[in-house]
Order: sequence, then structure tokens, then C-alpha cells
Amino acid sequence: MASNPPRPLAVSLGDPAGIGPEVVVKCWDGRTTFDLPPFAAIGDPRSIGNVWDGPVELIDDPRQVDAVFDYALPVIQISSADRDLPGHPSVAGAHCSLDSLEIAVGLARSGSAAAVVTGPVSKEQLYSIGFSHPGQTEFVAERCGVSRGNVAMMLAGPTLRTVPVTTHVPFAEVVAHLSPALIEARGRTTLRGLQRNFGIAEPILAVSGLNPHAGEGGMLGTEEADLIEPAIATLRAEGWRVTGPHPADTMFHASARARYDAALCMYHDQALIPLKALHFEDGVNVTLGLPIIRTAPDHGTAFDIAGQDRADPRPMASAIRMAAACATTRELIE
Amino acid sequence: MASNPPRPLAVSLGDPAGIGPEVVVKCWDGRTTFDLPPFAAIGDPRSIGNVWDGPVELIDDPRQVDAVFDYALPVIQISSADRDLPGHPSVAGAHCSLDSLEIAVGLARSGSAAAVVTGPVSKEQLYSIGFSHPGQTEFVAERCGVSRGNVAMMLAGPTLRTVPVTTHVPFAEVVAHLSPALIEARGRTTLRGLQRNFGIAEPILAVSGLNPHAGEGGMLGTEEADLIEPAIATLRAEGWRVTGPHPADTMFHASARARYDAALCMYHDQALIPLKALHFEDGVNVTLGLPIIRTAPDHGTAFDIAGQDRADPRPMASAIRMAAACATTRELIE
Repeated sequence: MASNPPRPLAVSLGDPAGIGPEVVVKCWDGRTTFDLPPFAAIGDPRSIGNVWDGPVELIDDPRQVDAVFDYALPVIQISSADRDLPGHPSVAGAHCSLDSLEIAVGLARSGSAAAVVTGPVSKEQLYSIGFSHPGQTEFVAERCGVSRGNVAMMLAGPTLRTVPVTTHVPFAEVVAHLSPALIEARGRTTLRGLQRNFGIAEPILAVSGLNPHAGEGGMLGTEEADLIEPAIATLRAEGWRVTGPHPADTMFHASARARYDAALCMYHDQALIPLKALHFEDGVNVTLGLPIIRTAPDHGTAFDIAGQDRADPRPMASAIRMAAACATTRELIE
Repeated sequence: MASNPPRPLAVSLGDPAGIGPEVVVKCWDGRTTFDLPPFAAIGDPRSIGNVWDGPVELIDDPRQVDAVFDYALPVIQISSADRDLPGHPSVAGAHCSLDSLEIAVGLARSGSAAAVVTGPVSKEQLYSIGFSHPGQTEFVAERCGVSRGNVAMMLAGPTLRTVPVTTHVPFAEVVAHLSPALIEARGRTTLRGLQRNFGIAEPILAVSGLNPHAGEGGMLGTEEADLIEPAIATLRAEGWRVTGPHPADTMFHASARARYDAALCMYHDQALIPLKALHFEDGVNVTLGLPIIRTAPDHGTAFDIAGQDRADPRPMASAIRMAAACATTRELIE
């Protein structure tokens, strides 16, 4: 790591019955190999004890992290009402994961933590306790006072960054969700995020088409002319460097990727297929448009393998490393 | 090359004003490096002379290829009514490209050629002379007496093969085109093609979902339950090894690709994005379901760079090499 951010990171463990605790302790264990900066885990220390017998030290202030991090995993304790076991999610565990998220975001909002990295939660469990956001991203946005329309989910790997305009929308409803205003908003958030989080002064955004061959001049669809080209024109008129609409299948080989800083895609799989094909183990979910830095590994709770020492810590390590890099960048330029 | 097919290949030059002639002569020039078997070029020798001053020998029978191939490019002459120049497509050139295709397919049908490899044609030019097929694939299918519904377009690279169920269909019309019968037909053609062209005795087909997360149990779309799962069940009942529907974004990293021989995708970009992200220079278009072997490089006429010595011959070399490998395989097992 070129330089660590000035303050430690806050890493929420996610659902105590998922693989979150396991991948976080594996990250601390491998902190030198993974080249990770100091961080505090936020969650129930018993969920760590279920899967690890390494050193843990409870702290109550991120300022204690630096003194502890060399010899123990610093944990800010959020207790679950039950003793949750790996692979057995519970209502108490869902409350614990939500409280951990709340505290982690609060520490970043207050400035005590340089960034927040969120472990995987179970949406089903959260819905059962009245959680009304589509996911952690929207929750974090609300806590930061930012409307959902002005945040964007970036998937970032070492050689590719993609942002889907629509996310968890059925295929047949994608077209109805697309509009020039939404494409512009996501494009703007992405371009500003490339500046603020990645330090790219004049970012280039490549916008995908929706149809095969980007509609082939209208023969294979009209959304490019009706929705995407007007949005590109608006962004260009604001002074941004934007290309497209490009046929989506010609955007993701090495020489094409070299021509832009992020690809704005029209739907979930258009953004996620190339990202995961190229960067399955080191793709990171970065929320753009927030006053704080927030990243997450791009995987779920994986209850089916929790507690079996089978979880791969590399996505969480990548998320922690990218959060630190973004925090350092933002510190430098703002 | 382990072993060459018993007869030469027929390679149509495509549109004489496109990059077809250039990439074919570059293949002959690099035949040792590219590890290519003997082939005859079919088209107008003047289109070769426009871009190359190497040795050409006119032949009128593929049986002459073996005696010529070491010292000259064997060409079966199909003259254009005009002298077509690179980058300047014409009606005469379109006729020439169609005649070349017709002869190349005929040579494969008669058994004089082991396989046909088709250079890029211009659909716009062909439409202007009354060509009524969506592309060369459907033309070849008709000449072989096979209905369009029973052929499949496979994109094949060194570590991934994909087949789209729907191809050149606007995004908004994909769902209306999908049916269990069509998914089954494409699946069957793909599985038989893996046996006949690639020599895989018990192929495994991975079928993608349509929606994000393959519909997430119906929360994000119902086409998986309504259309895809019934097709998979039918194919399995016939004894085929078929998995899915899989979330499309989790199918294309290395460890996922190792679990299947081909991925059956629901639409153009779902199949083409991962293939080109991973294998832009060496992806080959293979038509499955034909009595003959037919491959093609997965690029177009590129009129904008024709005649400038800028065309990359590697896709054409990959198409020739794969045609030879498929022909050898089919010779062995049938």
C-alpha cells in the first residue's frame, strides 16, 4: 500500500451466521499478504469465536485501532440477543447485522473511520424485521441524506469498472425503467465518483447500447436513439467526456477497456457479466454519490458454506484495500 | 496441428471491398506460425491483388490444393463484374461475395472440401441485390436443407463456448421470442454439435437464466420457471446432461467455465459479452446443426480499414484452425 488513510476503516461483519465474520478474520490474519491498512470489525465477537480462535481485542473507539491492530483484531462489540451459529440465520442475527451496519456508517459519517466496508447481510432476514430498503446501499444512502437516484453501484476490478443504470429489475421491465434522466443521473454520479474516489481528473465514461450491435442504426431497436444518445448529449454538453452508445459485446476486451475509465451499462447482467468474467475474485462493490466512502465484497452471506472454513477472503480483502485507496485519494484531493 | 483433415478447406473471401481478402492472404503467409492446414481461397483474385503482391495460383479443383499450397495461395476464381477497391463496396462485389459463398458451400456439400470458412460479407450490400436471409448462417442452412430453427450459432474460444437462443432480436422483443420449444431445440443442436464437431461424448450444457440472479426465486422475474426450467427438464428427460438456469453473471469465471462444455444463453449480448471479453482475438463463429462444417471469424467487413494493412488475421486463422479440427473430429467419429 502506497500510503494508509489517516484513520482506520470500519468493517461491519454482516450477518453473524454468514461468512462475513470468517472472511474478516481471514483478512486480519493475512493483513500483511493482502496489504491491508488498520481496520476495526463491527459486530458480535461470538460470531468470530464460532469460526476462529485467534486474538480479538474489544475496543470502543476507532482511535484505539492503531495500537491494537498489530497483535489482535480490534472489534467494536455489537451483541446479538442470541448466540448465532454459522449457517443458521435468526431474527436476532438480523438485528445484530443491522446495528453493526448502523454503527459502521455512523463512524464514517462522524469522521472517526476513514471509510466503511460492509459484510454480507441477508435481505430475507432483514425484511423479516421490517427493513424496507432494497439493500445495504440504499440504507447507507439514506443515512447519508442522499436520494437513491443519486447514488450508483459501481463494480470495480483491477482492469474494469462498470456501473449498471438499472439494477435488480426483471429483464422484461428494464426498458420501462430506463429514461434519459436516469441514464444522465447515473452517468454524472459515476463521473464524479471517478474524480472523488479514484482521483481521475478528467474521467472518460463509455456508455453501452441496450440492443444487439447497439441497435444497428435502428434495425435492432430504438432505445439507443430515443434514450441513450440524448443522455450522452446532455452529459457532453455539461463538459464531461462520454463515448457511445457502444455495442456491449465490443466494450470489454483489453484494448477496448483501455479507452475508458468506467462503463455505464443499461442493466444488471450487462455490467456484472464482464466484471465477474474478468474479476470474479477481486471485484468490489463501491457505492458512488455518498459523502463517505463505502465498499463491499460482491458476494452474499453464503449460509450454505458458513462455518466450514471454505470462504474465500480475497473479495473482502479487495473491498478493504479499495476503500483505503479511495479514502486516501479523497483525503488528498478535497 | 495434430492431424490435418483428409481434404482441403474452402475459404470464401467475403466482400471483395472488405478485409476478407487481406486476412486470408495474411493467413496463408503465416500458415506455419498459425499452424493452418491446406485451404483454397474462393473469390476474385483481383481483390487479393489490391492488397498483396504475394504468389497466387488459380486452380479449378480443391484436389489441386495440396500440390500448390506450399508455394502459393490456391484460388478458385469467382470474378466480380467490376474491379472492386478496398473500402468501396459495390453491387458487383456483393454478387461476387454471394457467388463465392455459394461455391464454397457447394464444395463442402459435395465432399470436395472438408469444411467451409466464410469471410465477412456486407448484409446491406447483399440486401440490395435481393438476398433475403438474415445472414450467411441462414443461407448456408438453406443450402444444406436444414431449417433455421435447427441450426445454432456457437461462439467458440479456447476456454469458452456460448450459444445464444435468440440472436439479432431487439432487447425488448427477446422475451416474446423465447419459448421452451426454442430453448430445447437450441440446446439439442448444441449438445449434438459438441458431440459431432468437438468429439465430446457426453457433453455438459449450462443454461443461463434471463433475469438478474436467474430471477431470485421469482422475485426478479418468472421466465426461469415458465420457460427455461421446463426446457431443461425436457432435455434431461432425453438423457442429456444439462445444468441451470444459472445466474448469468456467475457462469463465466474460470472455475465456473470448467464445469461445462457450452453455455446456452438467452440473448445475443449474454452470449457475446463474455465470449468477446475473454476471447476477442480468437473467438470463432461455428454453425451447429449442419451436415457440413462451417466456421467464420467473428468480425465484419470493416470497410473503414480495408486496404490499409491494418486488419488482424488472428480471428480468420482461428476460424480456419477450428474448421480443420472439427472436420478431423467428425471424420474420426462418423
